[in-house]
Amino acid sequence: MLGKDYEGQVCSISRSLEVVGERWTLLVIRDVLLGRRRFDELVESLGVTRTVLSSRLRTLVDESILERRAYQERPARFEYDLTDKGRDLLPVIAHLMWWGDRHYPEPAGPPRVLRHRGCGGDVEHDFTCGRCHEALAGGDVVAEPGPGMARRPA
Amino acid sequence: MLGKDYEGQVCSISRSLEVVGERWTLLVIRDVLLGRRRFDELVESLGVTRTVLSSRLRTLVDESILERRAYQERPARFEYDLTDKGRDLLPVIAHLMWWGDRHYPEPAGPPRVLRHRGCGGDVEHDFTCGRCHEALAGGDVVAEPGPGMARRPA
Repeated sequence: MLGKDYEGQVCSISRSLEVVGERWTLLVIRDVLLGRRRFDELVESLGVTRTVLSSRLRTLVDESILERRAYQERPARFEYDLTDKGRDLLPVIAHLMWWGDRHYPEPAGPPRVLRHRGCGGDVEHDFTCGRCHEALAGGDVVAEPGPGMARRPA
Repeated sequence: MLGKDYEGQVCSISRSLEVVGERWTLLVIRDVLLGRRRFDELVESLGVTRTVLSSRLRTLVDESILERRAYQERPARFEYDLTDKGRDLLPVIAHLMWWGDRHYPEPAGPPRVLRHRGCGGDVEHDFTCGRCHEALAGGDVVAEPGPGMARRPA
């Protein structure tokens, strides 16, 4: 947590960064948004140590950004999903993605695109659907591989 | 820089976090947005060491997010301003702020509110002006003290 260092600040930005500003945390949330919900999937996708991932997941569960559910009993195994509070972070993550797409572009185009789950339209930067013009919340949006993803092996 | 650790990832989110995901970096950008442009103002506002601040500013200038201008010659003194690329980060910072306002509220209300520089209207979450309905870019927005700021001494 960045908590201690930012304590003197009356600021919702620093308050948010106390919770999600730690290394890897926004990438864990991105992965869960992309459907990687199990510990081993997250370790593999992120290339992070199990200790670091455990610590980040614990914080995210404590802060009610993720919820943990058992999907197997013996041995006990858990998967993670975003709460509504966690899904509210989608605009932060989407704007980081769009900023990267714009200022550090892949030659073939964006690695990922966001689409409206309902009709498949592109998500506009104001979080409306470019096709049906509906206002979208975190749960209405899915990420799909874009043209920049196809150019490189996994 | 988080660069080395995130290298295996073809992802504009991790690309962006390589540049702005380091401790303090988003708060430096927030401060410059709020009009704190000189080294000593930033040190005081952030409560960070001069060494850390120098390192963050150097990265931000190297990445063309900030530009450095001399405002005094003997001794040479510099101030920092956002480039257009830097101002493009406003939606990331604003959504972090709104997420904090919503999920970690101050009893008296938000510490800061964003307003349209032109007409003083509130900035809506889709980056339009709530009063004149204009679509807003980074340079059109100013941050003002909100009700949550008045309750605490600086």
